[in-house]
Amino acid sequence: MIVVMKKSATEEIIQSVATRIESLGLKAHVIVGTERTVIAAIGEKRDGEAETLSGLDEVDKVVPILAPYKVASLETKEEPTTVRSHDLVMGGGHVGVIAGPCSVENESQILESARAVKAAGATGLRGGAFKPRTSPYSFQGLKEEGLKLLAAARDETGLAVVTEVMTPQHVDLVSRYADVLQIGARNMQNYHLLQAVGESDKPVLLKRGPSAAMDEFLLAAEYILDQGNPNVVLCERGVRTFETHTRFTLPLATVPFLKERTHLPIVIDPSHGTGIATLVPPMAAAAIAAECDGLIIEVHPNPSEALSDGAQSLTPEQFSDTMNRCRAIATAIGRSI
Amino acid sequence: MIVVMKKSATEEIIQSVATRIESLGLKAHVIVGTERTVIAAIGEKRDGEAETLSGLDEVDKVVPILAPYKVASLETKEEPTTVRSHDLVMGGGHVGVIAGPCSVENESQILESARAVKAAGATGLRGGAFKPRTSPYSFQGLKEEGLKLLAAARDETGLAVVTEVMTPQHVDLVSRYADVLQIGARNMQNYHLLQAVGESDKPVLLKRGPSAAMDEFLLAAEYILDQGNPNVVLCERGVRTFETHTRFTLPLATVPFLKERTHLPIVIDPSHGTGIATLVPPMAAAAIAAECDGLIIEVHPNPSEALSDGAQSLTPEQFSDTMNRCRAIATAIGRSI
Amino acid sequence: MIVVMKKSATEEIIQSVATRIESLGLKAHVIVGTERTVIAAIGEKRDGEAETLSGLDEVDKVVPILAPYKVASLETKEEPTTVRSHDLVMGGGHVGVIAGPCSVENESQILESARAVKAAGATGLRGGAFKPRTSPYSFQGLKEEGLKLLAAARDETGLAVVTEVMTPQHVDLVSRYADVLQIGARNMQNYHLLQAVGESDKPVLLKRGPSAAMDEFLLAAEYILDQGNPNVVLCERGVRTFETHTRFTLPLATVPFLKERTHLPIVIDPSHGTGIATLVPPMAAAAIAAECDGLIIEVHPNPSEALSDGAQSLTPEQFSDTMNRCRAIATAIGRSI
Amino acid sequence: MIVVMKKSATEEIIQSVATRIESLGLKAHVIVGTERTVIAAIGEKRDGEAETLSGLDEVDKVVPILAPYKVASLETKEEPTTVRSHDLVMGGGHVGVIAGPCSVENESQILESARAVKAAGATGLRGGAFKPRTSPYSFQGLKEEGLKLLAAARDETGLAVVTEVMTPQHVDLVSRYADVLQIGARNMQNYHLLQAVGESDKPVLLKRGPSAAMDEFLLAAEYILDQGNPNVVLCERGVRTFETHTRFTLPLATVPFLKERTHLPIVIDPSHGTGIATLVPPMAAAAIAAECDGLIIEVHPNPSEALSDGAQSLTPEQFSDTMNRCRAIATAIGRSI
Repeated sequence: MIVVMKKSATEEIIQSVATRIESLGLKAHVIVGTERTVIAAIGEKRDGEAETLSGLDEVDKVVPILAPYKVASLETKEEPTTVRSHDLVMGGGHVGVIAGPCSVENESQILESARAVKAAGATGLRGGAFKPRTSPYSFQGLKEEGLKLLAAARDETGLAVVTEVMTPQHVDLVSRYADVLQIGARNMQNYHLLQAVGESDKPVLLKRGPSAAMDEFLLAAEYILDQGNPNVVLCERGVRTFETHTRFTLPLATVPFLKERTHLPIVIDPSHGTGIATLVPPMAAAAIAAECDGLIIEVHPNPSEALSDGAQSLTPEQFSDTMNRCRAIATAIGRSI
Repeated sequence: MIVVMKKSATEEIIQSVATRIESLGLKAHVIVGTERTVIAAIGEKRDGEAETLSGLDEVDKVVPILAPYKVASLETKEEPTTVRSHDLVMGGGHVGVIAGPCSVENESQILESARAVKAAGATGLRGGAFKPRTSPYSFQGLKEEGLKLLAAARDETGLAVVTEVMTPQHVDLVSRYADVLQIGARNMQNYHLLQAVGESDKPVLLKRGPSAAMDEFLLAAEYILDQGNPNVVLCERGVRTFETHTRFTLPLATVPFLKERTHLPIVIDPSHGTGIATLVPPMAAAAIAAECDGLIIEVHPNPSEALSDGAQSLTPEQFSDTMNRCRAIATAIGRSI
Repeated sequence: MIVVMKKSATEEIIQSVATRIESLGLKAHVIVGTERTVIAAIGEKRDGEAETLSGLDEVDKVVPILAPYKVASLETKEEPTTVRSHDLVMGGGHVGVIAGPCSVENESQILESARAVKAAGATGLRGGAFKPRTSPYSFQGLKEEGLKLLAAARDETGLAVVTEVMTPQHVDLVSRYADVLQIGARNMQNYHLLQAVGESDKPVLLKRGPSAAMDEFLLAAEYILDQGNPNVVLCERGVRTFETHTRFTLPLATVPFLKERTHLPIVIDPSHGTGIATLVPPMAAAAIAAECDGLIIEVHPNPSEALSDGAQSLTPEQFSDTMNRCRAIATAIGRSI
Repeated sequence: MIVVMKKSATEEIIQSVATRIESLGLKAHVIVGTERTVIAAIGEKRDGEAETLSGLDEVDKVVPILAPYKVASLETKEEPTTVRSHDLVMGGGHVGVIAGPCSVENESQILESARAVKAAGATGLRGGAFKPRTSPYSFQGLKEEGLKLLAAARDETGLAVVTEVMTPQHVDLVSRYADVLQIGARNMQNYHLLQAVGESDKPVLLKRGPSAAMDEFLLAAEYILDQGNPNVVLCERGVRTFETHTRFTLPLATVPFLKERTHLPIVIDPSHGTGIATLVPPMAAAAIAAECDGLIIEVHPNPSEALSDGAQSLTPEQFSDTMNRCRAIATAIGRSI
């Protein structure tokens, strides 16, 4: 890393910083500029030395050179990771589409949803059984009963079930029914939960936190990978900005940016990313054009009756049209859904 | 608009607010709820009454019902506006591509750029002659000499020249050489400038300010339209958020969101929207998939020698590849570039 | 709540929305404006109806009138809540100061810290035993050993121990040693954890998430209150914005804003709120002037040797000076620390 | 500056970057790390080289070492700048308070305001004659008539008149009546306007743009200073973030942060910074505690009748109470208002 000294730093202080750097097992290389001195610390690791050094007297700033993540990095593994479950395949040129309602509400709703999204070409089924809700007074999901309904829908349709797990104690329970464990945006930095799914043998769909920087997102994945679970899918679902006309701001540049840094597949959630049903189809199409590895889209047989997220859910017909549009684009750029 | 009273508001105070509403020429309609009273003010105009009422005693908040813009609104004009200059056509199903260097640097650079982007399919030529630069010590553009070079490039290639005007006094000068006047993001709320280009007969490309809300963006367009110039093109070029891995965060949902509200064409600038050349092609493709009416892209014969914005400029070859990708997507969704 | 219809809504559709509102047990009151129709839904509850209605055809937007939180609201309880543990008192005119290192590192470090902050006037001792770290490769805390050291420091000094609990399974363990349970910013919406501390009899210090809206923050508190634990302290520790010169942006307006809405005490964390030790003293002073109910400040016997957060930690001397400055301001405005 | 190469950079490419650095008149110093090579470029200037180099092949990022501003920097001038006009003094330990209505509305309104704020202890009078308004349909100010009324108020009260100038052509006109020229937040990067007031002999109050980074803010000041006008006052008036409960987010850490970098005085605007009258007094007090050099506060004889910004204006009585609170705090920390 590069340690930039303040202009006022004396030679003695510069020397003491260099000594401190060497005490961390690094090699200090002092470069005297015309107005400032900087010290290159060679042999940088990834464990918080930068933070320590930035607290030293007369240090202006510390600039890390290495990315802080390892296992997720393209520098560690060059070939793209492909995550599979049943017919759902994401990564390595395959675009997987996961669709279904925000919450599992009852048997007919989830079965009807599953049949519809399967017919339109989805290979994964989403649906919340344990629902993190902003208010304690909102519908919190059907819990295990919801998981059973999801499993039944998979058994009928063959769709891989993707559903959220909210707390470490539930990982075993959810794993009994689900095919892919989803970590919600609110839990992106719930490290005990990340470690728990890291010990699971199920693939994990990790949603980006609404104000997570890219390094934080990849380090959250690293918590899972570090426990031995290699099947992590990164999901961009929009970030919180000053914009209020959409529920979140959906930065599709996340896709090509991450592809230059990680081998993990990247999925886009245009439903949460916009919060408005009419904006979902064009943003789904745009995500395909940006070469994402998958989509996760909310579809409900009757959005205006939905117990949650009705405003951003597509009808089965709208979803089918969206799939057609996405397929046409994928074909045009040599990818397949 | 809806005036929401505080729980503590007495009947007397509620009455005084209603009286105030009626003094503004509106009709007050008091609705007593179970916990709060709200007053609907019927006959709402668009000139700041909401702001006034929100300062009254015991008023909790005021919710406007109408959008504050008029001429830009789809409610005023349903058919899409098509803006044309030479072969550059934006809106009404036509996708226009404007490309060229950040700054005009010299004759060979701008001519070479113009020929290359024309060959790849662009119909507009961008290039800054007056350059707003964050630092007074940076290159500020060739000024009138740059305008002359742009005009010469147009005369040779037929490309419409799109270039920035920074201050009202320069509108006449820039109009003598340019085909489309660009208002930069920093000047989106420079109202004297907006009025000056509103009096011009040249089309205006209005860039969104980096922290402008949608209503503010449309009201900036309204300043131009209100002066009688109907040819305004809205340009999304990215917003400032907590994200630092890209220069700005580019929210493509702007395209479908605006299309539900305004008849004006919407153009995307993936160069400033990302700030990184490798991210430009996928974001250009994504913008086409989101059904934008145009693109504006920085292209330089030799980006590493550029006097400004080299990091986000494409080479002519990269631009040509990008155009091919965009055309394939446009064709797939029934649009043409 | 107020349901605003689109301009295009027919009378038939308006009627169907009104019927839907009544089916939710509310009374619909249709108001025909000059350009739009709005429907007031009287009898609003706080459980997500707004979300449902906003998904209906031809509904433009839904504006809730009531705040979504109940128990935390001043409308429910007018007198300020005072939270106490040992000599630490926050709320009701009392300003409590919690200070200590980011992490517990070893016995001498925590004891030395405790003695120093006690001598300067703190009544609470902070120190992390379970540390949520962005990277899995960073120091994660001494865990139970750290808790034991904190308890020993309390036994010697009488300071109330404030320390973080990261996961529901640890609530019992941490409660055995700690006096106040801290919920970190990353876990503000970890609802199982909120419920678990809601069942505890220890006071809870709830940190605002870095992109949490005020309603979300108060609803997180509501999850705890709703389980029967009334002793919740709200902590503003800075939000994530486009600003990068400070670690977070610290909005002190949170203090007076919340005081108009909730009876819960509000504490400011200027250490995380700025991330830079030299900015901590003025921001601590400013927080006192804004009438906060407490401060939580990082103090380390030797910041440049700290295992975490060295750059934002004060030395004991700097902390003592800060306390003097804060006391002078508190006295000047009739408050006491 | 430091040029960080990608891991994949070959020795040949590294050499070509070093050569390019030397062609800019800098000295290149290559440091081979364990995983990456970095090149220190010694002799850094402040004119955009970093931008140029970041576009080179295999360059990962470029880290500038020097701040990009010069004249505004403490490195150039150590003693604080004091800006004076009549009895208004800001900087060098003096806290100046500027108060008055958002807009000048008529003679009695501005005279009444001036007398009230003078009586409470203000030494500057604010009031807009040329008003930048988001909507073209809002009240735009009394223009020259408003300037005359402000001058008359100064003649009676001795208060220094602080008023906005919106476009270069108006600088002479506004200077005839005003004592301090205000540059509004929307115009912080209107460089022709900055240069025009830089040529004036009046002090300039420069408001921070709502999404301006600190370097951009100081570089905007640099545009003014660079024209020879040394009397620039920096004004923090809040930034645009995801927070919507206040009009803007007011980061008081701006005060101590800037004081470590610049000699220019720093003024806080708690009126725009919050947008809510009840939040203004505590934030004014907090700003004093953070050691700002001045305040600018909106005061109106009758806020609920104000033509603009009524919701954030104090009454004369509220302002007088605020001044008392601020004076008490200033005294407590050894400063005077």
